Amino acid sequence: LQRGQKRLSFVTCGSSTDTGQKSDTDWITLNVGGHFFTTTRSTLTTKEPSSMLARMFADDDAGLAWHSSVDSSGAFLIDRSPRYFEPILNYLRHGELVLDKDTNPQGVLEEARFFGIVSLVERLEDVVKERQPPDDRAPIT
Amino acid sequence: LQRGQKRLSFVTCGSSTDTGQKSDTDWITLNVGGHFFTTTRSTLTTKEPSSMLARMFADDDAGLAWHSSVDSSGAFLIDRSPRYFEPILNYLRHGELVLDKDTNPQGVLEEARFFGIVSLVERLEDVVKERQPPDDRAPIT
Amino acid sequence: LQRGQKRLSFVTCGSSTDTGQKSDTDWITLNVGGHFFTTTRSTLTTKEPSSMLARMFADDDAGLAWHSSVDSSGAFLIDRSPRYFEPILNYLRHGELVLDKDTNPQGVLEEARFFGIVSLVERLEDVVKERQPPDDRAPIT
Amino acid sequence: LQRGQKRLSFVTCGSSTDTGQKSDTDWITLNVGGHFFTTTRSTLTTKEPSSMLARMFADDDAGLAWHSSVDSSGAFLIDRSPRYFEPILNYLRHGELVLDKDTNPQGVLEEARFFGIVSLVERLEDVVKERQPPDDRAPIT
Amino acid sequence: LQRGQKRLSFVTCGSSTDTGQKSDTDWITLNVGGHFFTTTRSTLTTKEPSSMLARMFADDDAGLAWHSSVDSSGAFLIDRSPRYFEPILNYLRHGELVLDKDTNPQGVLEEARFFGIVSLVERLEDVVKERQPPDDRAPIT
Repeated sequence: LQRGQKRLSFVTCGSSTDTGQKSDTDWITLNVGGHFFTTTRSTLTTKEPSSMLARMFADDDAGLAWHSSVDSSGAFLIDRSPRYFEPILNYLRHGELVLDKDTNPQGVLEEARFFGIVSLVERLEDVVKERQPPDDRAPIT
Repeated sequence: LQRGQKRLSFVTCGSSTDTGQKSDTDWITLNVGGHFFTTTRSTLTTKEPSSMLARMFADDDAGLAWHSSVDSSGAFLIDRSPRYFEPILNYLRHGELVLDKDTNPQGVLEEARFFGIVSLVERLEDVVKERQPPDDRAPIT
Repeated sequence: LQRGQKRLSFVTCGSSTDTGQKSDTDWITLNVGGHFFTTTRSTLTTKEPSSMLARMFADDDAGLAWHSSVDSSGAFLIDRSPRYFEPILNYLRHGELVLDKDTNPQGVLEEARFFGIVSLVERLEDVVKERQPPDDRAPIT
Repeated sequence: LQRGQKRLSFVTCGSSTDTGQKSDTDWITLNVGGHFFTTTRSTLTTKEPSSMLARMFADDDAGLAWHSSVDSSGAFLIDRSPRYFEPILNYLRHGELVLDKDTNPQGVLEEARFFGIVSLVERLEDVVKERQPPDDRAPIT
Repeated sequence: LQRGQKRLSFVTCGSSTDTGQKSDTDWITLNVGGHFFTTTRSTLTTKEPSSMLARMFADDDAGLAWHSSVDSSGAFLIDRSPRYFEPILNYLRHGELVLDKDTNPQGVLEEARFFGIVSLVERLEDVVKERQPPDDRAPIT
């Protein structure tokens, strides 16, 4: 950016971004498959720092490189399922895996694998097995 | 504000904010994890005044300090699950805990704990236990 | 309003509001807890004219007094649950109480009570009793 | 419209409206009770041309008369339930009646009756009867 | 476009569109029946390149021809069900068919047929048969 040039005008949230510096309390909006999730950098990076998701938003070059894909509102674009990302984000917030009765754990498992949330993958694989009726272990869910 | 200076154009609601004064009938919009909830200061602070949520919106310094995190629409940012916050807010509105069949009470319990709604925590712990089948008391929900 | 002064630019719907006059076919948008419902004055006031909801939107002083709370889009603010208001509004539209399997009737009952839809309160109390298993009549729903 | 006068600026979609002419491939947005549905004139008018819904969007005077009620985004206002309209619209798209397990068919039946989709009314009446447990044929659903 | 003529100002996402060139990492927003899905050209075209959906967004004349129908936000208009398109898009993202308990597979099957996702059609036909109780194989779902 040249001096005087306008910065992205789509900063969604908060005063911490005003200085152009990142902090753990940065508010971040994710556009996951068309649905918006508002959270903090801290939530995305603290619980499982080595996950791909944490590295996407880490304050280093890898994070910065990925950051180029934002939508017109300034939200970071992620081409995944919002429905099944939601329990992942809740897990990062408070450390519990919580699934509603109707939610297919296989969907959440796919997201945990994609984002590299290792601690969830194994637990979700167990949940998937448990919920499958004994006489219906076909690959189609 | 100097005369002629533009006021924040993001005032979400109501005439009570025009004077810059807060009242119990202030309308407040919360951005909980990307989802918007509209309610009043009275609802957030009356039912359980000592809860963290009530103190966030109390008309004192603690409340004011926290208020700095608003999104571009003027909604107060909260990094929590909208799905499970909803029954909490309804409880603050009318005093009843109402859960749909599909809703995992464990999710609501996490929010009650976070917001410090003590009167709900114990009740939700009971609901969680009741809904768990006897042979499936594993930590994974 | 002084002559030449700009009127609220957020009138959401319809040409009938252009004259500043209300009619039964006025389109009205309600902001119920952050969720938007579009309906007509007729729907809100015809089915049960003595309900609080009908009186809120009646073409008299009581209605006008309450009307002061609109959000920035011109929608009337109501601090209640959108999820459980929905069946109430449908009932006012066609006269049938329709609940999905997952919906907790207790939630709809709370809204019927709040809005003073007397004809629904008794029916919903019956539904609540019917859906409660005989061995689980505890107050927690 | 006089020459030079501005046309409605809220045309939501498509180039086919640029000429002011309607065609079967016109894109149309409906605001059903506050929820937006995007579809085409063809979908609304082809499957059951004599239904009220088809006549609303037919390219004749009746259609034009009704068209006066649009919201500020140019969507056609309909004071009905979005939840139960959805299966109706899907039926008009592909000819199959598809209901999720949780959806109360009584709600869809009310919409089919309102919109005059005769071919669906009878089928839905059968579904309502089938889903009702034999010992619970009370009018409350 | 003539020089100086304004380009569509509604480009939803990303820098890759700035040059007017398409790449596999183009971000694309679909307006499916009024609901927005954000994804990439790669997701839509890679998994099943001969499907109608892939051909819609292929970088050739057929794709370009279809592209003329965009809404005012620049999203590509598709007159289909968003609810049942969602599992299709997830399948294109990670290769697994994941359905929630409440979701009627018949609805997803209709979308798979429409978009020509051949590999899904047969699997979904099996799921539809499996979920149908033996004594309820009537055409109404």
